[in-house]
Order: sequence, then C-alpha cells, then structure tokens
Amino acid sequence: MGFSHKHLLGIESLRPDEITTLLDLADQYVDLNRRDVKHSDALAGLTQINMFFENSTRTQASFELAGKRLGADVMNMAMQASSIKKGETLIDTAMTLNAMHPDLLVVRHPHSGAVDLLAQKVNCAVLNAGDGRHEHPTQALLDALTIRRAKGRLHRLNIAICGDIAHSRVARSNIILLGKMENRIRLIGPPTLMPSEISAFGVEVYEDMEQGLKDVDVVMMLRLQKERMDGGFIPSEREYYHRYGLDADKLAHAKDDAIVMHPGPMNRGVEIDGEIADDINRSVIQEQVEMGVAVRMAAMDLLAQNLRANPTVEV
Amino acid sequence: MGFSHKHLLGIESLRPDEITTLLDLADQYVDLNRRDVKHSDALAGLTQINMFFENSTRTQASFELAGKRLGADVMNMAMQASSIKKGETLIDTAMTLNAMHPDLLVVRHPHSGAVDLLAQKVNCAVLNAGDGRHEHPTQALLDALTIRRAKGRLHRLNIAICGDIAHSRVARSNIILLGKMENRIRLIGPPTLMPSEISAFGVEVYEDMEQGLKDVDVVMMLRLQKERMDGGFIPSEREYYHRYGLDADKLAHAKDDAIVMHPGPMNRGVEIDGEIADDINRSVIQEQVEMGVAVRMAAMDLLAQNLRANPTVEV
Amino acid sequence: MGFSHKHLLGIESLRPDEITTLLDLADQYVDLNRRDVKHSDALAGLTQINMFFENSTRTQASFELAGKRLGADVMNMAMQASSIKKGETLIDTAMTLNAMHPDLLVVRHPHSGAVDLLAQKVNCAVLNAGDGRHEHPTQALLDALTIRRAKGRLHRLNIAICGDIAHSRVARSNIILLGKMENRIRLIGPPTLMPSEISAFGVEVYEDMEQGLKDVDVVMMLRLQKERMDGGFIPSEREYYHRYGLDADKLAHAKDDAIVMHPGPMNRGVEIDGEIADDINRSVIQEQVEMGVAVRMAAMDLLAQNLRANPTVEV
Repeated sequence: MGFSHKHLLGIESLRPDEITTLLDLADQYVDLNRRDVKHSDALAGLTQINMFFENSTRTQASFELAGKRLGADVMNMAMQASSIKKGETLIDTAMTLNAMHPDLLVVRHPHSGAVDLLAQKVNCAVLNAGDGRHEHPTQALLDALTIRRAKGRLHRLNIAICGDIAHSRVARSNIILLGKMENRIRLIGPPTLMPSEISAFGVEVYEDMEQGLKDVDVVMMLRLQKERMDGGFIPSEREYYHRYGLDADKLAHAKDDAIVMHPGPMNRGVEIDGEIADDINRSVIQEQVEMGVAVRMAAMDLLAQNLRANPTVEV
Repeated sequence: MGFSHKHLLGIESLRPDEITTLLDLADQYVDLNRRDVKHSDALAGLTQINMFFENSTRTQASFELAGKRLGADVMNMAMQASSIKKGETLIDTAMTLNAMHPDLLVVRHPHSGAVDLLAQKVNCAVLNAGDGRHEHPTQALLDALTIRRAKGRLHRLNIAICGDIAHSRVARSNIILLGKMENRIRLIGPPTLMPSEISAFGVEVYEDMEQGLKDVDVVMMLRLQKERMDGGFIPSEREYYHRYGLDADKLAHAKDDAIVMHPGPMNRGVEIDGEIADDINRSVIQEQVEMGVAVRMAAMDLLAQNLRANPTVEV
Repeated sequence: MGFSHKHLLGIESLRPDEITTLLDLADQYVDLNRRDVKHSDALAGLTQINMFFENSTRTQASFELAGKRLGADVMNMAMQASSIKKGETLIDTAMTLNAMHPDLLVVRHPHSGAVDLLAQKVNCAVLNAGDGRHEHPTQALLDALTIRRAKGRLHRLNIAICGDIAHSRVARSNIILLGKMENRIRLIGPPTLMPSEISAFGVEVYEDMEQGLKDVDVVMMLRLQKERMDGGFIPSEREYYHRYGLDADKLAHAKDDAIVMHPGPMNRGVEIDGEIADDINRSVIQEQVEMGVAVRMAAMDLLAQNLRANPTVEV
C-alpha cells in the first residue's frame, strides 16, 4: 500500500490504492486550506522549483501556493525568457537545476514525453504539470477528488467527457484514472476531435451530446484548445456551441443530480453556457480549483516523504 | 473606533479616526523596517496574492515586501501574460483565485471600478492598488503619513497638488483624504488637465503656479501621465516644465519650510527639477517610498485582524 | 583577517585571505545544500532584492535560492518591464529600492561600472552579479571553489582560459582571482577575441589551442558571447569549433587529470564537444553550478554579518 513512487509523471503508473492514499491525504489539506492559518511544515527546508516551458497562470499558481503553504522554499523559473533562447538544451537546463539540489521539480512542457525524459536525468522528485498531449496527472487527481467529494464515491459512476478530446492531456489522464477506478466513461465530441487510439481505452464514444449525456452522473467539459489545433478541422465557435456547448437543454438529459466540471480557463458561450457554469447546484468548477491546491500539497508531501525515507525508491 | 472594514477599496469610505488608527500602526512598522531584523509574524500562515493587471514595479514591490516582512505566503500573478489572453473574464479569474483561499488580494486594474466589482465576488480582503482614474488609497495613506511625520500634524495645512490632476487617481485619493482631515487644498495646473467635477471637492483652483504655491506647507507634484492622455491636449515637455515644472524660483513662493512630494517614478526636467528632487532639506520623496511599505503593512495587518475576528464584517 | 567589505563589487578589491575566508564558509554551505533540510536562519528577517537589468535565469536562480535557504525575504524585480521604460534613471530606481530598506541588493547591469555607481547611493550591501565587461565576482569565486575542491589547492596551478576573452567579465574576474592566488594563467583564443590590455594581467597568450593546453591542470572554456560582438569579427561557428572548440584531441594535450570547466549556458558543438562536457571524469561543469549557490550563500552571509556588526564598514 502507501505511495511508492519517486516521481509523479502520469496516472498510468499509479495503482488504485495509491490514488486513494493520495486523495485521502488531499482531503486533510482541504481542511487546512479552509482555516485561518493555512500553513504546515511538511516541506520545511526543502526546495521546490517550478519550471514552466508553457505559460499557465492557474496551474503554476496552484503549485506555488501548495509549496509555500507546506513551508518549502519555492522558486519559479520563467523558462520562455531564459537560457532556452541562448541555445541550451532541455537536458542541460535540467542538469543545471539539478546541481542546485532542488527536492521537488514541477515541470510543464509543450512536448509529450519531455517531462519523463527530464526525470531520468535528475536526482529530485519530478511532478508533471502537463506535457504536450500526454498526461496532466494532478488535474486528473483534482478532478477525482472533486467527484469523490460531490458523489461520495469514485467508482461505478457514469462519466461523460465532452469536447476536444484529441488535443487534451486533461482528458487522457482522466480517462486513465477514472478507468482504473472502475467507472463507465463516455467520450462525446465530433469525430475530428476524437483521439485515434480510442479503442485502447475501453470507453463508449458518442457524436451526439444528448445521447451521450443520458443518465450520466458527471459531465466533464473540456476547453476548446484552439492553440493546439494545427491545420486540422477548426469548427466555428457558434457551430461548436450549438452542437457541443453545454446548455440547460443538453444537461437535462443527464441525471438530475449530475455535476458539471471544467478544467478552466473557460470559454463561456463556446464550450459551456455561462449560467450553467455559475449554477452552484450543478457546477463544481470552483471546487476543482480548490481541490487543485490540496491535491498538489498531497502529491508533494508524499513524494518528499519517499525522498527522505529512501533516496533510491522505484521510479 | 478601530478600523472596521473588510476591504480597502478607497479613501472615500474611511472615517478620519480610521485613517488615524491606520497611520498610528504604520508608524510602528516604520520602526520595524529600520531595524536589522525587519520581520514579524502578523500575517504568518496567511496567503497574499498580488494581481497586477497594469505593470507597476514600485507599488507591487512595496506590497510584496510588506507581506513578506509580516510572514505571509506571498504570490505574484503576472496577469498580462495570463489567462486574460485565453479569453477568461475578470470575474472568472477572481473566482479562480478565490477558490485557492487567499486571505489578502492586492489588485491593480486599468479600469475604474474593476477592483470594487471584484471585491464583491470574493471571500478574502481586497486592497485596491490603483484602479483606472478612480482611487489609489495606499498612495494617499503613505502621503498622509509622510506629511504627518514631516509637519507634526495632518490638519490645517495648506497643500498644493500640481500638474496632471485630471488623469490622476493619486490626486483623487489625496484630495479626499486631505479634505477629510480638514486641510486646505489647492489644485494647480492647466485647465485641460483639471478634472471636470472640481466643485464637488471644495478645493481652490489655480492656473498659475506662483500664485497657487504662495504660502503652502506642502507641494505635491504629480507625474505627467502621458500614457493616460487619449487624444486630448498634450503639452510639449519643454512648455510644460516652463509653466508647471517645480523649480527653485517657483518653490520660493511656498513657505520656507514647505516640503516637496512626488509619487514617482519622476520625469526629471518635466514636472520637477532634479536638484529640488534631491534636496534633502525640502524633498521627502524617498520618505514617501519608505512610508509606502509601512502603510501597506498596517493596512494588511488591520484587514487580517478583521478577517480573523469576524469573517463577515462590514464591506 | 576575516572579510571586511560592505559590498562585493569585484574580485579586484579582495585580499587572498578574504577569498580563502569566503571559500571556507562556502564549503560549509555545500554540505548544508546536500542535506535533506537545506535551510538556515543566517539571513532571517533580512530583505534581499534581486535587480537584474539583464536576463540571466541561472545566476538569478542561484542568488534567489541562496537567499531563501538562508531565511531571507527575497524579492525579484523584473527591471526590463519596469520603471526604466517610464524614463526613471538608474539612480532614482536605486534610491527608491533603498528607501524600502533592503539589506542585500543583488544587481546585474549591461554597463560596466553601473553596479559600483549604484553601490555609492544606497545604504545596504550590494553584490555585483555581472556588470558589462567589467566583473562577475561570484562566478570567479565559484570557479575557484570548484578548482580548490577538485585539485586540493588553489595555487601553483596551470590554468588555461579559452575562447572569447575580450567580451567576458567571467574571464576578467577569473584572471584577477587566479592571479592573486599565484597561479599561472594562459589565455587562448583568436587575436580578435583577446582583450587589448592583456599585458597588465601578467598572463601568457596563445593563439593555438594545442600549444596553449599543453600540461595545464585546468581548462576553462568560455561561452561565445555572440550578443556582445558589436560589428567586430564574428567567426563562423564551424570554423570556431575547428580551431577553438574543446574536443578529445585538443584536451589530450592537457594533463591526464586536467579538469574541464564552463560557466554555462553551453553552446555544444561550438565552444565545447558534448561528450567532453558530459564526461564525469573530466568535466566539473555541474559542480560549478552547485558551488555557485554555496558561494553566494557565503558571500551574503559575510556581508550581512558586516552590516550588523558595523553599519559603516570599509566600502
């Protein structure tokens, strides 16, 4: 049992009981974050470096707050304006940071696999904060915690993931996690935004929102990743909203107590109706953000415990 | 008595005794900042987020230092390069941050009223670090503290505010504060840079510097806000300096012990002569910066006390 | 003895015994940084401001980590996007920061002498993090510590500095430091990249790498500073690598146990062969980065001790 990893690179390598261990600890950090004094010494004296090769205000902020509230010395590296421009390779940059003895390295990178590669070169614990179209494990974990708290369980739920699935590492990590926890997953979206390797996931696929949403417990909307659509079919926003934007009519097909999720930032009126997003009886979008800080605190705490217990644990 | 607000959005809503309470506490923080060990635990375990939608090196630095010296976990958000570009609304951005459970949110925004709007949507205490042409309350408070320390009092003084008053939230907050404390205020500047609603302020207006400066105790120069002049009359810098730039000749009309102030950053040779700015017998421009850190420490300390004492105090 | 300076502006003003004092303390910080809990309270309650007018991810990160691990309140100022654009002078910016009562000010500036000028205007301790082509003292100190640990001593060594010496403040500070410690220094590079004032340094000059590297103990490669070459002779990268890039053939002329150094970031295949850079039996490039944090911790610790002991020590 426990959580026996050196890094958090993806959901792929986590066992269900490890996911549960992490979410249980995160529940405790939700409580801490709601107090006046929201600070612990779990990472006191440790160094956390955030290395974002892709901008992400909210994810970086969430990791930064998580580390600071646990007492770590936290440093953000603005990688765009950095040595990268001077021709340094990713590996050289990683080796340079490694030589400064960080304990936790949080990395976001536009290329799938870049974070795994980097993790092989450093001594510290690496957390994947999103790599290309590959994985975004802390997003899937925060979504899982949000669902578990809203629904009272994280298994045997009907969960619809809707929209631009092909370009979404959020979808990919969620499909893996929710599958491991024995949920029934439906992917809903136009064929052009559906990944090619669907069959491997053991999911149901729907092109029609109303059919796909029928009787689901959870509606997980995705951001339309315009910046990742390279030359393929780009739907008009109006047409997209008409067919796949979540509004009251479409949501009526889901269960009465179905929750609505979105990883943010939202394009209101494109993938989701503003009123649905703000409906505190249905939308758990703000809870997702709150769970994000707690899940990242839990992940860093567990990895730091492993670092201290055993400098050479399973990778 | 005391200081019974949830937010610090403007000077408008402060009572004179609240201003005095805040300045008295700030005096104590001036002493702390002059020591070797300049650190307290007043905000220990609390989270401060700085959210600047407009660049301001000195104001952001002042708030950041203030929070760090009080032991808060401080996070800066670079809002230009952020979700704003991804189409997220101001309110969504605020709600996202709010879900991370900050205790203090420091906001600068180019639109008047944006900070008030945002304060209605969040649970934490909001400090206005400048919104459009509306208010910049901590600037007025630091100016007040500087005057009180230099003159021994903050009432019955003749105070001239000179220059580009129409575009200046600094001027606006100062006029309100100094008026509340029963000082006599003169506004000096070309008619084109004078606000339209002057009569509401109960101030005297001068177009001529020498007349306006006659026998004043305090000369408050303003920065020429070229970036805020949209299509109106833009004076040439040379002409402006000749008529409204503070030099020794013009200053000679003020009282012998009149002090010279400027909120910075200065355009030397445009609105103020470099020698006057550097004259330690007249200029209190460096003191203003020093008071800035202390005033922000006091403001955050008071708001945090209110947060802890009563999660739902008067807004 | 001891270390009796208010600022660390260059190697020029340091005595050999002061260099030894600083390196001895840095050795202790190397040990601290290798522990799980890598944190001390040497700078607790003090304020460190990093003011980089030139981008440098690794140097700024090294100073930031050094300060945070010593418990300082650390603030980074992004000077490019700042008041500089609003027309404020360097001195006004410095005076403004000074009024916020920092204890340690770390400054990088593109103009030689700018950091010295600034140090004359402020009350705090100033550390030069690189000024134009003048000095980069902490780089020379970290190189010295790396050599001393690898070779067991820092005197009577044959040390080759290779490449673009004319444009390099790293070379300049190293030549001064290594000369003070009584080493024999050789400069190797094309005449167009050799400084004009060589004779003043008491060094040997070589145009040919193989001759220059013969029997040296230390090979110090420099980054080709393309961004500093203004209109002069710019060699093609291929030609440069052929004549001055460090590869196995050229390195064979050095002593068998010669170490290879590079200040980073490296242009692999331009000034150094990738395999040499990665050869853990020869290359100490990662150690240099590690020593960087320790040397900066030592420097800030010593300067802070002097600040506390005597507010007006020798400049």
